[in-house]
Amino acid sequence: MIDDTFKELGDMPPEEFREAAHRVAEITADYLENLESYSVLPDIEPGSVRSALPATAPERGEPLDDILADYQEMIVPKITHWQHPGFLAYFSSVACGPGILGEWLAGGLNSNVMFWQNAPSSTELEETVVSWLRQMLGLPEAFDGMFTDTASISTLNSLVAARHADEDLAARQRGIAGRPETGRLRIYTSAESHSSIEKAAIVIGVGREGVRKIEVDEAFRMKPDALVRAIREDRGRGWRPIAVVATLGTTSTTSLDPVDAIATVCEQEGLWLHVDAAYGGAAGLVPEWRSRLVGWERADSIVVNAHKWMFAPFDASLLLFRRPAVFRDAFSLVAEYMKTPDTGDTHNFNEYGVQLGRRFRALKLWIMIRYFGREGFAARLREHRRLALAFAEWIDAAPCWTRVAPVPLACVCFRFDGSDEKNAEILEYVNRSGGIYLSSTRLRGEYVLRMQVGNPRTKLDHVRRCWKVLQEAVQ
Amino acid sequence: MIDDTFKELGDMPPEEFREAAHRVAEITADYLENLESYSVLPDIEPGSVRSALPATAPERGEPLDDILADYQEMIVPKITHWQHPGFLAYFSSVACGPGILGEWLAGGLNSNVMFWQNAPSSTELEETVVSWLRQMLGLPEAFDGMFTDTASISTLNSLVAARHADEDLAARQRGIAGRPETGRLRIYTSAESHSSIEKAAIVIGVGREGVRKIEVDEAFRMKPDALVRAIREDRGRGWRPIAVVATLGTTSTTSLDPVDAIATVCEQEGLWLHVDAAYGGAAGLVPEWRSRLVGWERADSIVVNAHKWMFAPFDASLLLFRRPAVFRDAFSLVAEYMKTPDTGDTHNFNEYGVQLGRRFRALKLWIMIRYFGREGFAARLREHRRLALAFAEWIDAAPCWTRVAPVPLACVCFRFDGSDEKNAEILEYVNRSGGIYLSSTRLRGEYVLRMQVGNPRTKLDHVRRCWKVLQEAVQ
Repeated sequence: MIDDTFKELGDMPPEEFREAAHRVAEITADYLENLESYSVLPDIEPGSVRSALPATAPERGEPLDDILADYQEMIVPKITHWQHPGFLAYFSSVACGPGILGEWLAGGLNSNVMFWQNAPSSTELEETVVSWLRQMLGLPEAFDGMFTDTASISTLNSLVAARHADEDLAARQRGIAGRPETGRLRIYTSAESHSSIEKAAIVIGVGREGVRKIEVDEAFRMKPDALVRAIREDRGRGWRPIAVVATLGTTSTTSLDPVDAIATVCEQEGLWLHVDAAYGGAAGLVPEWRSRLVGWERADSIVVNAHKWMFAPFDASLLLFRRPAVFRDAFSLVAEYMKTPDTGDTHNFNEYGVQLGRRFRALKLWIMIRYFGREGFAARLREHRRLALAFAEWIDAAPCWTRVAPVPLACVCFRFDGSDEKNAEILEYVNRSGGIYLSSTRLRGEYVLRMQVGNPRTKLDHVRRCWKVLQEAVQ
Repeated sequence: MIDDTFKELGDMPPEEFREAAHRVAEITADYLENLESYSVLPDIEPGSVRSALPATAPERGEPLDDILADYQEMIVPKITHWQHPGFLAYFSSVACGPGILGEWLAGGLNSNVMFWQNAPSSTELEETVVSWLRQMLGLPEAFDGMFTDTASISTLNSLVAARHADEDLAARQRGIAGRPETGRLRIYTSAESHSSIEKAAIVIGVGREGVRKIEVDEAFRMKPDALVRAIREDRGRGWRPIAVVATLGTTSTTSLDPVDAIATVCEQEGLWLHVDAAYGGAAGLVPEWRSRLVGWERADSIVVNAHKWMFAPFDASLLLFRRPAVFRDAFSLVAEYMKTPDTGDTHNFNEYGVQLGRRFRALKLWIMIRYFGREGFAARLREHRRLALAFAEWIDAAPCWTRVAPVPLACVCFRFDGSDEKNAEILEYVNRSGGIYLSSTRLRGEYVLRMQVGNPRTKLDHVRRCWKVLQEAVQ
């Protein structure tokens, strides 16, 4: 029985919610089952969705039927389909089935994992899952950690902690501006590193000039000797180095910086080492690949995005840190209105980063890990690499096509032997074909194409189709 | 037909997902229907959930049945129930039914709203819903905006923009450290403002000393004359003021700063005005309450959390800004690997804030707004205020109880006429009672109790029960 007063001023009535939840289950199951009926990229003009929607919100409520019908008609066909097995651009970021179920359950609970009292089992499940993932990645017990939303934030938090670890700077208390004695701050990262490093540097007051991009070798890996020279040169000129950011899996080529050598430099120079393994860290799930990551176990902080090559629904970025106290000392502010009784060695996670409110991300990871098992992740990653290597072989064997970077994981960078414009035309052709979405980057000044495999739904047939469409594009 | 190879290396098989999605629909509908069968706060020892979970992840996959059974047994009963109508602590943050449906649909799509090409309809739906909300709140067309995850991030983004608006500082390019000519940076906010302001100041290099807390009047509102004096005194001493953060709805008492007078100060002094209306901004949905917010339409940036008094599943923080170009100039970094063709006047939202990856938050808001209508939100907010005022009357009429702050919205601060310890004992008694969860704060040095209504499931009966349990506590 639905009570009208309740509907008037309460939440959606329980029976209406139940019925609607089942409809959403059907809509979503249908969507995932029929992904390939969509073009990865929709063929629409910018602004066309916006102009088809009312400019003003309705004054009074509308029937859910109408809303869901509009969703199916106006939104779904005009989205870029990240879940599609032909999405081979950028890095895959897909929501696997068990992850979606976890996200849905978390959505019903709406647990806000700020501190233990407000979120006891969700806090402790996060502690557990973080420890599970650390072990699955082959990292030592010395690492504690938490989930954040994105690598942008995991790296920002880490660089704030790095700045805080420079105790003489006293950044938390005094701020860093207008103090001539401090010198200007410097962060080191490779010329191939992700834009999030530079963005974090802007935010924390290091600025773009404070980011020194270290040159890379022929395989796009940071040169440790160039790093040492840069640090020493900077110190001689009055700069104040605070951190080095190494990358395991750069965005353009998935190159892996020599973290072990970089860690030695950081130890010698007394600098914080943050490892951006947002993409490549997942390689730790495959035991025989762990040698590629050697040295990351010496880092002060590491980010691995579970929403990249681990199939977690967006968002779920794993931030691991060796000195939790530095993060807590850097960020913790416990206002009077947030004080709760002592809860032992459990975490009040808001004290370790910039955000107070935190989603219950551990739930989906817990369900995913139990559903697939560690071996299940490893098997899928091996398969993705197998597909990427097959594609690389076809490129290598083909006249007029050149592979332009090694394939350390599951991403291939290549180009047609022609102008940048010709390659941009090829990309346009492929992306308009419907079934395949690729992206581009620039290496050694040249425009190049990129294909990566990171979606469990992607099979050999999709990679074959990609190669076929590329060949059609140059006919 | 389920193909074993697919199960081995693909996603969860479609039929298994469909069946499981319906089970999750039932689990969630049951949970929401039976919320009151749970204690708001579970009676558990810190560490007990963690110690009951395996210390290591499984090597091989487990049946979904086992996972869902463990979820029901180990997680749900041991969580703090934010959805419970007796959760009257802090600020309510509840996921309403239509919002959950939106979150679920978004979870299935997994659209990452970085830039238009990757997320065309999700980008344009965000543009539309942001405009709808702006109008619903009674704010002028001059405001553009976007969703972020939390007020912590909306405020951080805004203060980075404020710092960037000080063009001579050239913070983005040069950084702010080690430059004696800049002076130390200062941000002004009231003594009652939220910890996220101070945290953002730490992150951007202003530091705790760079946050000057302005005194409040007898109703806990920032004093504009004290603000003017502080700014002028600081300038005289070589500080560099960059921004003022006014609060509409402080965390302790929901006091409303006199934003109009503060805006005049900001104009005169050439300072950025950020308005933290994370809680109180929702009052703009009720036309007859808008006069309480007057002046916020003059702000440079405003944050209103849709996941607070608007019932959106966490997370959804609305960030509005008057000068989008300042945000874009402060944050935009378009790496080679992210370049896409021109898409007219649509937003590449990652360029306006710290995060590159962004959840599709507009979908749930779109569904919620259409389901309830603007009037539906207003009616619920009026009801919450009515309940809070009833509670305030009971306190006012009772001997031995004192209300210690005005009730401008739907939160009541009060105490029993006794020691701080006695009041802490009362809180402990209430929170162990099961049906009600209250929080505490400190006002004028005294420990006080706090009750607020912001959940559409909360009815007069719950508030009555709260008062009854409080009275029992002092028997």
